[in-house]
Amino acid sequence: MPTYRFPQLEQIATSLLEAAGVPSDTASIVAKSLVLNERFGHSSHGLLRIPYYVQLIQKRRLDPYASIEIVRETPSTALIDGRWGFGQIIARQAMHCAVDKARKCGIAAVGVYHLNHVGRLGEYTEMAAAEEFVAFVFNGGAPEDAIPNVAPFGGAKAVWGTNPIAVAIPTGESSFSLDFATSIIAGGKAAVARSKGMELPEGCVMDAEGRPTQDPWAVIQGGAILPFGEHKGYGLGFVVELLAGALIGAAAPELAEGEMATGALFLVFDPGHFRPITPFQTSVAKLFQRVKECPPAEGFQEVLIPGEPEQRSQLASDKTGIFVPDSVCEELAQVGRKLGITLEWEA
Amino acid sequence: MPTYRFPQLEQIATSLLEAAGVPSDTASIVAKSLVLNERFGHSSHGLLRIPYYVQLIQKRRLDPYASIEIVRETPSTALIDGRWGFGQIIARQAMHCAVDKARKCGIAAVGVYHLNHVGRLGEYTEMAAAEEFVAFVFNGGAPEDAIPNVAPFGGAKAVWGTNPIAVAIPTGESSFSLDFATSIIAGGKAAVARSKGMELPEGCVMDAEGRPTQDPWAVIQGGAILPFGEHKGYGLGFVVELLAGALIGAAAPELAEGEMATGALFLVFDPGHFRPITPFQTSVAKLFQRVKECPPAEGFQEVLIPGEPEQRSQLASDKTGIFVPDSVCEELAQVGRKLGITLEWEA
Repeated sequence: MPTYRFPQLEQIATSLLEAAGVPSDTASIVAKSLVLNERFGHSSHGLLRIPYYVQLIQKRRLDPYASIEIVRETPSTALIDGRWGFGQIIARQAMHCAVDKARKCGIAAVGVYHLNHVGRLGEYTEMAAAEEFVAFVFNGGAPEDAIPNVAPFGGAKAVWGTNPIAVAIPTGESSFSLDFATSIIAGGKAAVARSKGMELPEGCVMDAEGRPTQDPWAVIQGGAILPFGEHKGYGLGFVVELLAGALIGAAAPELAEGEMATGALFLVFDPGHFRPITPFQTSVAKLFQRVKECPPAEGFQEVLIPGEPEQRSQLASDKTGIFVPDSVCEELAQVGRKLGITLEWEA
Repeated sequence: MPTYRFPQLEQIATSLLEAAGVPSDTASIVAKSLVLNERFGHSSHGLLRIPYYVQLIQKRRLDPYASIEIVRETPSTALIDGRWGFGQIIARQAMHCAVDKARKCGIAAVGVYHLNHVGRLGEYTEMAAAEEFVAFVFNGGAPEDAIPNVAPFGGAKAVWGTNPIAVAIPTGESSFSLDFATSIIAGGKAAVARSKGMELPEGCVMDAEGRPTQDPWAVIQGGAILPFGEHKGYGLGFVVELLAGALIGAAAPELAEGEMATGALFLVFDPGHFRPITPFQTSVAKLFQRVKECPPAEGFQEVLIPGEPEQRSQLASDKTGIFVPDSVCEELAQVGRKLGITLEWEA
């Protein structure tokens, strides 16, 4: 099985993006972000996104030279126009802005619109937690070419996207990072099942008539993915659509009509205003111990802390290398050829 | 079926609390809060709580004369010691404090510890939304006499309580109010099933060995309730335990050891810093229309907006009266007799 060291993958991703006209510093940040997701075991948010990004650049839907504009600002809030740059770059800038404001004001909220795919939300909340801030990110709406794929609880048609939420908390040595879609499965899972001719697990999708099905084609034939956790997950997806869609995304005047502009809201606060970080982290360590000592339920090996699977995957893949399927290598090589470069795949 | 008008129930609840030594203005606020929950269809957070509150007062665990103390404060944050007063009173004061701060700073966070049962969290987020603020409340930990009843995902033992979350958004005419436990069922549901000799639905609880069961006694015999939505709901319950438990609740020095002090965190912001309220609410109205027009899935009549069931229940119960089971009337009458008053139950 061909595996690769992460610096090599970063090099390949950077070269491809540069060949597509992305400035070096931007290409390097986006490449590191994609490869970090590979290291964390989330290849759905990794290298396979590159051909899509290159397409967006060529269609002038993604401007690799975009620089953000702060549209409205107070000491504790900001509204940012991302001007359709890379989501990874804009989300980092928005989180930096929120952390700076929270450092001065104790708490801050920053909204962004006109941004492309941001990748894994947890990357940005983890940035804030590394600086000892608590951070939430809500990412809603969808770019104009995306179609809704998630139904409300009790509904038979999709009304919005997978509307993810991330939370990270500065818990000290063992980090706490929660990052999830408010749909029961990611859209990519249905795509994988279609490509492999497999069925989906029960209770995940329904067909165009609102009947339960395991057919992965249903999602793109008028059906929809269900929200996670019934009415509760639906309610959270709705919160994301309201805050990161209607409140932030639709703030872009030319997109107000469609209501499906993509947007993100960053909420950050300094936990030190409630309790000094050291005793807080001592309490957290005891809480983590209580959770880790919990005996496993039937069918489980152990109880995991949110963020723990990613940490383990990173340790393992930095040791053994990252597996990249031949199909992805070949697709990237093809993109490279079209852009006039040859990729150095040395397993 | 004996039904009662809500002003009469407020009168009865106020009299009982006054007879237990609660000052009139406090008794009236707590009574209105309990009866509002009855009107909203949440009798689990209604009149049946009174005997427990009276007990807490008699055991000096609840101080009806307590006044809060602001322990630490900045223009945008506050840490409040509730001094074991009524949760309903302290939560209102904390939310007022958060709204005042958010009015000046755009966004605010207020934490509270040493508070008794706060009732329905949505009551406080809805207060903020009525003043055109977005509000989140996290309520974690448990008072010292409560035992954990919710297991982590993949675990066989309970590690914390039902750790609820509420969010309200000022959406204009039709309000949006989400309020849920991070457990798959409320603890009260198992109690009801025990008292009626019924089984619980599949997939809600497990026994002391971590095996699935439908026996409602399992929860109090070493078993536990599962989190909602598998690892995602577990992650959210963990966030509540970290922010409203370890960060806020355990801020009480004498309770730091047990880590199970009850606490609440209020996050409030002014959506007007992102988009003026009128165009935001116009977008929201369109989004609500899109959701309401969604055809129902198999087994459903229609799609509901979070908060809609409560609004309908209020309209209906204000018209027809509120049903109070004879057992509850009798229990309250008994509490009244012990306190030397006779309740006027006139259906």
